[in-house]
Amino acid sequence: MRIGVLGTGMVGNALATKLVELGHEVKMGSREAGNEKAVEWVSGVSDERASEGSFADAAEFGELVVNATAGVASLAAVEQAGPENLEGKVLIDVANPLDFSGGMPPRLSVCNDDSLGEQIQEAAPGARVVKALNTINASVMVDPGKLGDAGTLFICGNDEEAKAQVSDLIASFGWPREDILDVGDISGARATEMYLPLWLRLMGVEGGPNFSIRVVR
Amino acid sequence: MRIGVLGTGMVGNALATKLVELGHEVKMGSREAGNEKAVEWVSGVSDERASEGSFADAAEFGELVVNATAGVASLAAVEQAGPENLEGKVLIDVANPLDFSGGMPPRLSVCNDDSLGEQIQEAAPGARVVKALNTINASVMVDPGKLGDAGTLFICGNDEEAKAQVSDLIASFGWPREDILDVGDISGARATEMYLPLWLRLMGVEGGPNFSIRVVR
Repeated sequence: MRIGVLGTGMVGNALATKLVELGHEVKMGSREAGNEKAVEWVSGVSDERASEGSFADAAEFGELVVNATAGVASLAAVEQAGPENLEGKVLIDVANPLDFSGGMPPRLSVCNDDSLGEQIQEAAPGARVVKALNTINASVMVDPGKLGDAGTLFICGNDEEAKAQVSDLIASFGWPREDILDVGDISGARATEMYLPLWLRLMGVEGGPNFSIRVVR
Repeated sequence: MRIGVLGTGMVGNALATKLVELGHEVKMGSREAGNEKAVEWVSGVSDERASEGSFADAAEFGELVVNATAGVASLAAVEQAGPENLEGKVLIDVANPLDFSGGMPPRLSVCNDDSLGEQIQEAAPGARVVKALNTINASVMVDPGKLGDAGTLFICGNDEEAKAQVSDLIASFGWPREDILDVGDISGARATEMYLPLWLRLMGVEGGPNFSIRVVR
């Protein structure tokens, strides 16, 4: 499948690399084609299936698109990607609205009555946004076997078929299907994004990002 | 031990009943002594160790005090309890700042840059506030054996000795010590209170409140 990955950071990098490994054609998008990190990624992966371009190039290229930009830059990225390039496509939103401008710990730039996932759905109304993978560290999301127990992965979105397709993709990363939990429509993004303050606290307690949470009964 | 429980709702009731069962003397506090639900509780428990009174009566009575009032009413309750009656005492804050005034799902009346736990600590500066038990349903918090796996219980607060004392009390409810996780100072209340939107979503998915989350690695 052709996949556009918006974002050149740790999350974009990990996902884009994994997707190429799985045989997908991946275009990494950034504000301008020729972005240093994107070019470095293409060169590092050294696979004809890896390419880079602008946000719009990546969105147009992808049959499926992943938003892995920094949360506070995500709306601008989606705007630059062009809602028309996202029309009818599944858009996996992995970002968290973490605002580091006031120092550590970051605050959420949106929460409680709204969420980044919902704002992205509004900004690209023709896209089928699925919030997923945002509650877990990049290295674990593409390699759940890295942990003895990678816990529960939460997904949400308004389109059932899109969620099924995203579940298939996530399962192809190695996530057991029974650990992928659908928490409803895109407003569930409020819930999974607002988990981030606890995630950040736990990272401090655990001494690193290699942990997860599992829903237990 | 003499314990004051502020609040006559489901959480206050469950905790007060469990504490009497464990041999503690418990005074349930409400806005005014003689509150119908409090009187009913005393009568139902039918144990000389159970009594009721005003918030101030309960706070004065307790060597340890529990805030189990509705989150949006908690600051008023602590004010009525009297900071002077809480001086030097451990105050377990179990409440969540859920505001149901706009319908379901409730929003948080405070979050992100502040928390109810911190506001209570500020309102009663001489109290040693420990946020605990707020991430789990009342019936499970006093009977973790009700679930096959009751998961991880998060506590936080500024006073190490107070947290140790609260851990002892929670362990006496049946919680394994290794499942009680200290997430730092009282600002950790932001993290555990902001988990509530996810808890509410999961309650919908699970079809009820009998679940928990476990930190896994």
